[in-house]
Amino acid sequence: VPTFKLTIAYDGTGFVGWQRQPAGTSIQALVEDACRPLTDRPVAVTAAGRTDAGVHALGQVASLRIDRPITPHALARALNARLPPAVRVRDAAEVPDGFHARFSARSKTYRYRIWNAEVLLPFERNYAWHVQAPLDTDAMRRAAKVLVGRHDFAAMQAAGSGVQTTVRTLFDVTVDRQDALVVVQLSGDGFLRHMVRNLVGALVEIGRGRRPPEWLAGLIASRDRTRGGPTAPAGGLCLVRVDYEEP
Amino acid sequence: VPTFKLTIAYDGTGFVGWQRQPAGTSIQALVEDACRPLTDRPVAVTAAGRTDAGVHALGQVASLRIDRPITPHALARALNARLPPAVRVRDAAEVPDGFHARFSARSKTYRYRIWNAEVLLPFERNYAWHVQAPLDTDAMRRAAKVLVGRHDFAAMQAAGSGVQTTVRTLFDVTVDRQDALVVVQLSGDGFLRHMVRNLVGALVEIGRGRRPPEWLAGLIASRDRTRGGPTAPAGGLCLVRVDYEEP
Repeated sequence: VPTFKLTIAYDGTGFVGWQRQPAGTSIQALVEDACRPLTDRPVAVTAAGRTDAGVHALGQVASLRIDRPITPHALARALNARLPPAVRVRDAAEVPDGFHARFSARSKTYRYRIWNAEVLLPFERNYAWHVQAPLDTDAMRRAAKVLVGRHDFAAMQAAGSGVQTTVRTLFDVTVDRQDALVVVQLSGDGFLRHMVRNLVGALVEIGRGRRPPEWLAGLIASRDRTRGGPTAPAGGLCLVRVDYEEP
Repeated sequence: VPTFKLTIAYDGTGFVGWQRQPAGTSIQALVEDACRPLTDRPVAVTAAGRTDAGVHALGQVASLRIDRPITPHALARALNARLPPAVRVRDAAEVPDGFHARFSARSKTYRYRIWNAEVLLPFERNYAWHVQAPLDTDAMRRAAKVLVGRHDFAAMQAAGSGVQTTVRTLFDVTVDRQDALVVVQLSGDGFLRHMVRNLVGALVEIGRGRRPPEWLAGLIASRDRTRGGPTAPAGGLCLVRVDYEEP
């Protein structure tokens, strides 16, 4: 039974997130249902990152096994023919047995977009956090530097997540501005639930001047979620890419 | 009674266009209704370009008169408080008596976006025309050159438009590609109904290799709409800016 790796983009607006939920439409359910005509057995589709409701993806990666002969390109076309335009398979590839979209991933890259101007462009309303107060991106950049490396990010985790360890390694964090658009991009070996949105919430506290850049290191060290900033809204977040070791 | 100039951005998806229609929601009706609490008299709002259903704007310009004292900034804020997030007043200014958004305009700039790849990104589904066949943008650029200048664009007009003259002057036409995105941008002293979408439809015929670049000049000269290409879909079109003589 061959294993396939799918690269998927989606506009998360209006969906309950990647993972199947009792109510509402999930990306996972859409992709699994689109597989149905291709095989007699139910297909389980696993994603690298279980994005939350309203979070977008440019390069989510999912893995699945199909017990019928099909080329990767035919698989991508068959799925896209059944998926809504808000969800697209950008690429498909056959991968070695044992490939698992989540466990095999070496690095994930998330991008968070902030619209920092008085008026939010209509085209950004589902894809950026509207922050009207002027942001000091230099202060945000200075603060973001301390995030790189191996840290216990318990202070950045959604309440009641219950994972085994809250230690993660961030490889790179950048803060860039182009006119009104401020982009925070993070790559790391893994992310706790709401971790990017909580980190961005803290960086915006610093950008607004409510906290000095040095506050962030202390917040991380405290391991105390209740001392953090607001959780940035879901619409600004996008899973940009997932990287794997070369086979 | 002071006259105000509004610069408005909107996501045209799901609207019937700028102009009030018997059925459906128009941008004009939204803006006029948003003015209601500001004055006792009904306010007429006139736009520079009457964009069609599904067409977007980054810099539509509209003029209106309000018989109550209000600063331009307070006007913009009051309107934005009442408008849906899909419609935003980006800027407001008081202008001399006699300013008319349409008749005073010297130049309008439209941008048309084409997504030229096998798979359409979800984020582009309402903002670009998906053309899968590879486009020869050099051929499109060569063809577009003949459009600059004063021409009778009758062959590019929607059927049954009934305007007095179909002669318009184009100041500039560019065709640019960045990866999958092909952008056609046109500025001119005025545009007939569907003119940009018909011009882009003809350019895409050339880009696909169905017609040689020289075909376009003959098509314009024929003044015959029935000989043209397809009308490009509304979602790819955006009114980028409107320019006026410096007061």
